[in-house]
Amino acid sequence: MPIFAIVNITTEKISGSRATLYLLPVPLSDVAPASVMPEHNIDIARSVKHFIVENVRSARRFLKRCDPSIDISELSFVVLDEHTDPADVAEMLAPLADGMDMAVISEAGCPGVADPGALAVDAALRRGLGVQPLIGPSSILLSLMASGFNGQKFAFEGYLPHDTATRQRRLKEMTGRINREDQTQIFIETPYRNNRLIAELSKTLPGSIRLCVCSDLTGVNQKIVCQTISEWSRSSYNFDKIPAIFLLYK
Amino acid sequence: MPIFAIVNITTEKISGSRATLYLLPVPLSDVAPASVMPEHNIDIARSVKHFIVENVRSARRFLKRCDPSIDISELSFVVLDEHTDPADVAEMLAPLADGMDMAVISEAGCPGVADPGALAVDAALRRGLGVQPLIGPSSILLSLMASGFNGQKFAFEGYLPHDTATRQRRLKEMTGRINREDQTQIFIETPYRNNRLIAELSKTLPGSIRLCVCSDLTGVNQKIVCQTISEWSRSSYNFDKIPAIFLLYK
Repeated sequence: MPIFAIVNITTEKISGSRATLYLLPVPLSDVAPASVMPEHNIDIARSVKHFIVENVRSARRFLKRCDPSIDISELSFVVLDEHTDPADVAEMLAPLADGMDMAVISEAGCPGVADPGALAVDAALRRGLGVQPLIGPSSILLSLMASGFNGQKFAFEGYLPHDTATRQRRLKEMTGRINREDQTQIFIETPYRNNRLIAELSKTLPGSIRLCVCSDLTGVNQKIVCQTISEWSRSSYNFDKIPAIFLLYK
Repeated sequence: MPIFAIVNITTEKISGSRATLYLLPVPLSDVAPASVMPEHNIDIARSVKHFIVENVRSARRFLKRCDPSIDISELSFVVLDEHTDPADVAEMLAPLADGMDMAVISEAGCPGVADPGALAVDAALRRGLGVQPLIGPSSILLSLMASGFNGQKFAFEGYLPHDTATRQRRLKEMTGRINREDQTQIFIETPYRNNRLIAELSKTLPGSIRLCVCSDLTGVNQKIVCQTISEWSRSSYNFDKIPAIFLLYK
């Protein structure tokens, strides 16, 4: 079956003839939603009644911050997280198939990027349902912009492999792609392991490679530190338990 | 020299003690700037007097659309584009070094991503100057969200190599990364070559690979088409001269 999703913002809004699965970004830090996304997103948050969310509690809090007058008790939430069986995702779209708008909300940032939200989008497209990505904060994009590293070629790796030998092999591959393909490498880590990761990178990567660490992006304690591995290995730092993203480039 | 850029939005705005290089996104389509970015960006567009831009004409038009009362004749523009000698970039930052805010504006989308703007950021960080990425539309991110493809691992390739044999080799490598690494592959093409590229992909890639083409993202003619290579090879399509972005996944 060809998978078509031809979405036209203007006609959507005027005719209301076709239900849409909105991909609604969430702030990365403790700031007002309207300060990190277009006002249009707040209108969507006000109008949608059916949500697919990574975490119900944080999604409710986000909606309340969008507009305190939103009546949360009127809304339906289904959970799509890392524990969800992909086979269960299609039926989450029942309200959409019945002609009602829905929105996907991730724990932080843009749904479908570095989260399981893509499963909902894929299921919608396969059923010919309308999908509309909305603009908002992404730690991947903001950190790439802030790093000054190559933004013409880059790769996001998610989490590095947990096993030490596999992780070391992957880091070697990534270093190869920096040098041979001019490709910036981007990855994340569980916040309580940030310091350990930086120490490991400092010990094992070539000294001339640059590591950029961005933490609390868009927040009041936002910090962007770019320096060579040699410099990191002589520096003191503390990113313990602070959401951070890591970028490597030559 | 360690390269530090510790940027704190709140203190920046309150104290004004430190000049900032803002990375100011531009709409991807013919829409009002405020419809695709936070109101905060419009405030920045109003306040900054010194710009590093990919194209002076489109940057002026963007600023006028942000606020028609902006007096363009008061502003300074220097060009940073694909023809700029990287050695010339550092001196473009003179106003910033003198304590005046500056902004980088790309032809479309987010500066520093898929454009030469990263050179200005890199030069600023190396001099210890403040950098602030702002939130706005990115065709890479929006298309990844809209595709339903893997957003937990992906690579942006820029333009594919021009030479046919090299391009074919690269596509083979990319197909390998889709299958072995579960990595979505994203790339762009000069709009008048879109149809030719899709025809070539249809002929040479494995039939089961999925190709998503997103065109006029955020615009009134936004179109998102996701189908397998086999389906593309049996479809009629026309993306001639329309800005589009291409994604491959299994």
